[in-house]
Amino acid sequence: MTTPFDDDHLREECGVFGIYGHAEAARHVALGLHALQHRGQEAAGIVAFDGARFQAHRAMGHVSETFESDRVMAELSGYAAIGHVRYATFGATILRNVQPLFADLSFGGFGIAHNGNLTNAMTLRRKLVKQGCIFQSTSDTETILHLVATSTKNSEIDRLIDALHQIEGAYSLVALTSSMMLGMRDPLGVRPLVLGKLDDGSMVFASETCALDIIGADFVRDVEPGEIVIISDDGIQSLKPFQSPRPRFCIFEHIYFARPDSVVEGRSVYDVRKQIGAELARESGVDADVVIPVPDSGVPASIGYAAEARIPFELGIIRNHYVGRTFIEPTQQIRNLGVKLKHNANRPQIAGRRVVLVDDSIVRGTTSLKIVQMVRDAGAREVHMRIASPPTTHSCFYGVDTPERSQLLAATHDIEGMRKFIQADSLAFISMDGLYRAMGEAGRNPAAPQFCDACFTGDYPVSLTDHWGGDEDQSRRSRVKIAG
Amino acid sequence: MTTPFDDDHLREECGVFGIYGHAEAARHVALGLHALQHRGQEAAGIVAFDGARFQAHRAMGHVSETFESDRVMAELSGYAAIGHVRYATFGATILRNVQPLFADLSFGGFGIAHNGNLTNAMTLRRKLVKQGCIFQSTSDTETILHLVATSTKNSEIDRLIDALHQIEGAYSLVALTSSMMLGMRDPLGVRPLVLGKLDDGSMVFASETCALDIIGADFVRDVEPGEIVIISDDGIQSLKPFQSPRPRFCIFEHIYFARPDSVVEGRSVYDVRKQIGAELARESGVDADVVIPVPDSGVPASIGYAAEARIPFELGIIRNHYVGRTFIEPTQQIRNLGVKLKHNANRPQIAGRRVVLVDDSIVRGTTSLKIVQMVRDAGAREVHMRIASPPTTHSCFYGVDTPERSQLLAATHDIEGMRKFIQADSLAFISMDGLYRAMGEAGRNPAAPQFCDACFTGDYPVSLTDHWGGDEDQSRRSRVKIAG
Amino acid sequence: MTTPFDDDHLREECGVFGIYGHAEAARHVALGLHALQHRGQEAAGIVAFDGARFQAHRAMGHVSETFESDRVMAELSGYAAIGHVRYATFGATILRNVQPLFADLSFGGFGIAHNGNLTNAMTLRRKLVKQGCIFQSTSDTETILHLVATSTKNSEIDRLIDALHQIEGAYSLVALTSSMMLGMRDPLGVRPLVLGKLDDGSMVFASETCALDIIGADFVRDVEPGEIVIISDDGIQSLKPFQSPRPRFCIFEHIYFARPDSVVEGRSVYDVRKQIGAELARESGVDADVVIPVPDSGVPASIGYAAEARIPFELGIIRNHYVGRTFIEPTQQIRNLGVKLKHNANRPQIAGRRVVLVDDSIVRGTTSLKIVQMVRDAGAREVHMRIASPPTTHSCFYGVDTPERSQLLAATHDIEGMRKFIQADSLAFISMDGLYRAMGEAGRNPAAPQFCDACFTGDYPVSLTDHWGGDEDQSRRSRVKIAG
Amino acid sequence: MTTPFDDDHLREECGVFGIYGHAEAARHVALGLHALQHRGQEAAGIVAFDGARFQAHRAMGHVSETFESDRVMAELSGYAAIGHVRYATFGATILRNVQPLFADLSFGGFGIAHNGNLTNAMTLRRKLVKQGCIFQSTSDTETILHLVATSTKNSEIDRLIDALHQIEGAYSLVALTSSMMLGMRDPLGVRPLVLGKLDDGSMVFASETCALDIIGADFVRDVEPGEIVIISDDGIQSLKPFQSPRPRFCIFEHIYFARPDSVVEGRSVYDVRKQIGAELARESGVDADVVIPVPDSGVPASIGYAAEARIPFELGIIRNHYVGRTFIEPTQQIRNLGVKLKHNANRPQIAGRRVVLVDDSIVRGTTSLKIVQMVRDAGAREVHMRIASPPTTHSCFYGVDTPERSQLLAATHDIEGMRKFIQADSLAFISMDGLYRAMGEAGRNPAAPQFCDACFTGDYPVSLTDHWGGDEDQSRRSRVKIAG
Repeated sequence: MTTPFDDDHLREECGVFGIYGHAEAARHVALGLHALQHRGQEAAGIVAFDGARFQAHRAMGHVSETFESDRVMAELSGYAAIGHVRYATFGATILRNVQPLFADLSFGGFGIAHNGNLTNAMTLRRKLVKQGCIFQSTSDTETILHLVATSTKNSEIDRLIDALHQIEGAYSLVALTSSMMLGMRDPLGVRPLVLGKLDDGSMVFASETCALDIIGADFVRDVEPGEIVIISDDGIQSLKPFQSPRPRFCIFEHIYFARPDSVVEGRSVYDVRKQIGAELARESGVDADVVIPVPDSGVPASIGYAAEARIPFELGIIRNHYVGRTFIEPTQQIRNLGVKLKHNANRPQIAGRRVVLVDDSIVRGTTSLKIVQMVRDAGAREVHMRIASPPTTHSCFYGVDTPERSQLLAATHDIEGMRKFIQADSLAFISMDGLYRAMGEAGRNPAAPQFCDACFTGDYPVSLTDHWGGDEDQSRRSRVKIAG
Repeated sequence: MTTPFDDDHLREECGVFGIYGHAEAARHVALGLHALQHRGQEAAGIVAFDGARFQAHRAMGHVSETFESDRVMAELSGYAAIGHVRYATFGATILRNVQPLFADLSFGGFGIAHNGNLTNAMTLRRKLVKQGCIFQSTSDTETILHLVATSTKNSEIDRLIDALHQIEGAYSLVALTSSMMLGMRDPLGVRPLVLGKLDDGSMVFASETCALDIIGADFVRDVEPGEIVIISDDGIQSLKPFQSPRPRFCIFEHIYFARPDSVVEGRSVYDVRKQIGAELARESGVDADVVIPVPDSGVPASIGYAAEARIPFELGIIRNHYVGRTFIEPTQQIRNLGVKLKHNANRPQIAGRRVVLVDDSIVRGTTSLKIVQMVRDAGAREVHMRIASPPTTHSCFYGVDTPERSQLLAATHDIEGMRKFIQADSLAFISMDGLYRAMGEAGRNPAAPQFCDACFTGDYPVSLTDHWGGDEDQSRRSRVKIAG
Repeated sequence: MTTPFDDDHLREECGVFGIYGHAEAARHVALGLHALQHRGQEAAGIVAFDGARFQAHRAMGHVSETFESDRVMAELSGYAAIGHVRYATFGATILRNVQPLFADLSFGGFGIAHNGNLTNAMTLRRKLVKQGCIFQSTSDTETILHLVATSTKNSEIDRLIDALHQIEGAYSLVALTSSMMLGMRDPLGVRPLVLGKLDDGSMVFASETCALDIIGADFVRDVEPGEIVIISDDGIQSLKPFQSPRPRFCIFEHIYFARPDSVVEGRSVYDVRKQIGAELARESGVDADVVIPVPDSGVPASIGYAAEARIPFELGIIRNHYVGRTFIEPTQQIRNLGVKLKHNANRPQIAGRRVVLVDDSIVRGTTSLKIVQMVRDAGAREVHMRIASPPTTHSCFYGVDTPERSQLLAATHDIEGMRKFIQADSLAFISMDGLYRAMGEAGRNPAAPQFCDACFTGDYPVSLTDHWGGDEDQSRRSRVKIAG
Repeated sequence: MTTPFDDDHLREECGVFGIYGHAEAARHVALGLHALQHRGQEAAGIVAFDGARFQAHRAMGHVSETFESDRVMAELSGYAAIGHVRYATFGATILRNVQPLFADLSFGGFGIAHNGNLTNAMTLRRKLVKQGCIFQSTSDTETILHLVATSTKNSEIDRLIDALHQIEGAYSLVALTSSMMLGMRDPLGVRPLVLGKLDDGSMVFASETCALDIIGADFVRDVEPGEIVIISDDGIQSLKPFQSPRPRFCIFEHIYFARPDSVVEGRSVYDVRKQIGAELARESGVDADVVIPVPDSGVPASIGYAAEARIPFELGIIRNHYVGRTFIEPTQQIRNLGVKLKHNANRPQIAGRRVVLVDDSIVRGTTSLKIVQMVRDAGAREVHMRIASPPTTHSCFYGVDTPERSQLLAATHDIEGMRKFIQADSLAFISMDGLYRAMGEAGRNPAAPQFCDACFTGDYPVSLTDHWGGDEDQSRRSRVKIAG
């Protein structure tokens, strides 16, 4: 379960959703996006098709705000619709980048929503601009649009496959044309995408199963790595245009991104997290009086830890549900309130006790430091931090917003150095094999790792063409702003 | 821990906060109100005094929105300030009712913030209007202003005491004049009010201790029932103008309103709730596989129940953190989504299991019904509902928004009828004596009840003058709207 | 014809309108206020009564914005309504001051809209506050409300007369109760107020006849100085509670405030202005090639001047209709653009010519200077400024916003000094007797002047109690802001 | 002088402005656009270049609103900038169509602002989409962008000329690249474009000279039909890529569109209009007491008419300056108020008189009807309508918004039929030769007309490829909306 506005977590960049065959397609997409809001709070959009016209609505802000208006929903009429939520970066975000992207191509309208990140987008973009393509956004996703638009293949599908063969990176895509809806995953299947079905036969794509639950759809199966699933009036069709997909699903989806009530790639997220907690207790047990989760993402691992360690689980930190986007800037005298605006120690559960704090990960370490201090200020005798992931040492280039390596605490400190930094009495991370065991594996297979774990290992399964090519920064490009 | 936007809970009407003696008084009030946001989400306001001028800012919306602007905060300069949060009714709310109220009286400025409800306000108002008083709001609190303004006593304090002797009802008040800040509770002390202190000597009033925590203030003591505490440059003074205060603190503050990290009237709210859960397990235990809280208010009682019953505690219902104020109106086909927008069953924790669901109370029963259905739809073998309060059979007239009696499920159904209504396999409420035991009492003393428990018993400790007098409805009065 | 946003004119402070007996009362008031918009652009409000309830809507901004919403208009239902427009001060304006004011008094609802200014409001206010009255605005008009509320007389009318006998100053008032609409003017009749009638028998009060025209109402008569006209279901009644009203209508209404298509106090405003122009030509003729008005207020006098002097009239200065409230702040290099944002010289009509410029008045003189420069820059050979009023040497305390005396050019310069200041080749103002002749009088009667001309003479016909009493500045009072 | 929101006029679609070489380029563009606001009130935009980056800001609304913010202006830094105002259509307008358009092309950034209309845009667009171009707007101007982007020529200039050779229609363009600013007119020079110069040497392009005046720039010369003027650090260069330009300037610019203080194509607009009035008086004189302009566009012709006919000129219709974009919807009973919201008869100037009303044109005739009625209701004895243009019988396809032919009164009625429709006592239009005489010509040369007068004659000088090709309506294309 993700915590909004927490300033020291990696951030998922997107969630996607699509439905085909329902008279209230767009309303269902809005509900699905609402269930996926934890994957992106910055902006949301829907493109709908009613058999004659495509309509789009995109805006900054939460799904419930963007699509609360009856007028907006009435315009998004039609039996097919796709949608997208996007994570809240601060600063460079512009409305033109908000997805789904849409274009009128020679074969008709084409909308696309993308979860992931292309690693050769800039390289392709330069080539396309030379050909005369005009880009409207700074989004890597627009590259796919132009590849489809300028493909010399004939059919929509062949043009799309032509495009997919040129792009590199991680992507789960949902696309909509005047005759079909498509769901696709990259050959490694880094990002999730599931197929669901409503009782009335409408077919659904969603990033997570929790978005099927909200509309009462049944889970059918995962879209497979490297697969294109096509939904049309003729039914479902599956294409596998890639020769040898090697599944490397993002292990961090299990640790933090996915909602605990989702089942991803066959595993209950909540159960995996409890198992991680139990592994942690076995690997790094410590004498203590109480197990306290860092809310809310640390709760399942805490429950697993507490049960395995037979130490009482208590809500020793209470979260304030009303945290807004900004707040009165605290001045010198009332500094360091950032954490307190969100959390408060439940003093009677802490005072005089030896506390095990369980959190999902440490990124910069600044929040961990403040939480340890808060728990100590509440009278804890000892504070033992247990982390439900290995040390995060590398940046992600596959659709997750990570700080530069230099800002990752684990990239510059060993465990003892990290412990000192956060001022805990002890600090332990789950081992890599422990993590894989919690996933039901015997351990990590170094020859052919079962997951993408690049953020812990630096083992990047897809080439980083733009990054390694020393490509110039996107930020040098002209910025174009639109007021509305 | 209160859940925002839950449509089947009683609602606290207000929270108050004040600080005297700090250079950044208003910023501290904003922080304090933020910590009290669960007591009222509709509107917030601050009145500050800088030694020469009073400044006020009041607006609809959350504290973090209303006071995020530096410009607004800069205008609220001064060393003394009081603030108020107000609960979100829908419809008749108008800005003029937003507190603190303020008036220029003959002795100078006078600001007042009120948590509670006067039971003879309409009666007094009619008398005052006849005298020529012009009311600007429909708030009962304005009555106090006019009583002070028209009092024939000389000093500010004597005028205030004169006013208090005329009003009836439940009130915790914080007031601000050009020379002092005052905190007061009604003779029964129905609503909470605590006194705190910062390291620099500034004195603080707050509805709950969690609002002291957020600014790092130490708890000093509760303001006593019937007491007036005066803070001025001369220090602290205590007046007790009422002869025989009989404490009757609102027991529902412990069950639901107060934040679990607060200590109210000497008791940890979290601990009391855990004790209620344990009492429930002892009184109404049942063979089951898992204890699941209705989030978030049912969590502490669930933990207490699970520990006492030795049944695993699991987060079987996951809450969506991004619920907004409104959402796309669900049409016929996708009805009954209200609950799903906020909660989702964590299916793997439920499927095939016998579930104990723990919630804090049942008001209309509609939400309970939907939650039981959701849990059943997720595959529960049995669903046993356990409620951490006695049946709610009567309306509150002391500052809590309750439906009319006819809408309270427990007013029209016996336990078995309620069980059928919510479609649970079993239903049990904590007994009245069990509740008092969880509070550390031997049981309820019928001759002199230790708490106000009128919502469970109909035993109203303060006379309901307006209500019993068949007074005409406030809503018949002219409504005056202001656009801004 | 008034020019909006012109920074060197006196400003009328208000316009009022009321209608009784029409099913769409509020819509008619909105139209009437729209026609009176030149009398106040800051804010507008309407109070309507439907036989059971009073409804009010008030907001900052223009009438067409404030009342464009169907929702707003639908709430303002009823057969009687009054309205008010208020002039755009910058800074201290607050919504609470926006009229009509309204209060629930012991005899029922009472709404009031005021054009003018009370000269003993602060003195009365201090007395009322001592009695326990709570003021909500800083408006002098609220004093009237409290005087009515606290009057010991019995009937509404007697209370109102009681109040009128206590107030001093200039006022044209429109008031609304649950049984009648009232129109009143002060004993000198300084501000205008007319009575009109629709074909269906509905009765109308308005500051000017142009507001009758817009709704197709016929002019009936002026409300007389010192008269109270009462409109009710029983018809029209006239009360004259003052013994010896001495009419002293504001002469500046004719010169500048009133719209040229209005007929005020029996005279066509346009005709009077043309006559002033003709008098000017006779008094201060000059050899020239072209007569050019300073748009738009100088146009009628220019036409009169040109006809009398037999010199061609041309639009030599073109006005930009799209001037907004603010604009990009001009930096050093592009300074002095204020005038150019609003006006541009029509060069071919000016170059090489001797120009007579006609304007209505000179206040600070800064705009005149810029306009003379603009005309010179366009190639004028000579520039002769002619002013359609005598020199403005004194402030107004009767409802017109004037700069302090020290800022009035004519208070500190003689005519030649003013000529040098504005850099014209010649400068002439109409004489006082010439002005009175243009009004159809033989001249000014110094023993009993026919008009209020205090801004030219310092002869103040109503005592300035607050001003002469050295009353403290209103601005020292606490400011209370409301966000919406 | 154009009247905003007048519902029965043809509407200019755009104005353009550019400046090169000034440190405050964008602020000057904002001022220039403000002076051109009469050419388009719907939306405005600026693209600025600071030597490294292009910045754009575009928004719906007036220039003074869009560019009032210091923050916005600070971002538009740089020494070169172009801007655009666009006329207020109602309905289909979307922000993506707001100009200047901008794209990152292979040679760098390219911004373009367009006044006029392409007559083969749809035909070109279909071809470009087939090549893989993705259009973002429904604007014809975007076609130029794609033609430049996909041109196989090498230099920026050659690509632009390549594009110009493919487009047909009327266009005055201002473009901006990283090395130059360009101004261009189509070979017939249908729309105006002038070159100006500031004292510091900065060069300026503007649709009209009034936009030079506002920033104090000197008029240099008109950009010639078919000419490309290039401004760069190397100075000014002129290219004439078209073989035989045949000037056909839009005669309606003189009649109505241009501001009276502008000098277009060597003629003072105000003088031309006065001459038209004088011609009208000679051609269609009538015995009358007063000449009254329909404000504001009829004023110069009225002055010319009155002087020639020796009949007094009076402001018999007064305009309300505060007309907003919308207003309370008038209900059945108060219908037909549209005209009265904007204008009021100045009754004393009209009653009992024989009136000559002078207006610039009649489009649908509905407004003329209401104005004649208003004048009659004010007591006119006779109403003679004189029109300062020939009957408008044909639609414009060159950048002016005209109703379909079927809605043009003159397309379906002869003069007598029109007179009856508007209920005037007499009606006369200026003759075609009279109009050309007012322009200083001997008359219209039928063999080679000196102006584009297609709206009066149906003689379209540029082929209407899209229109005649029966191209499908743009409105069938998918609409894509963006919220901000």
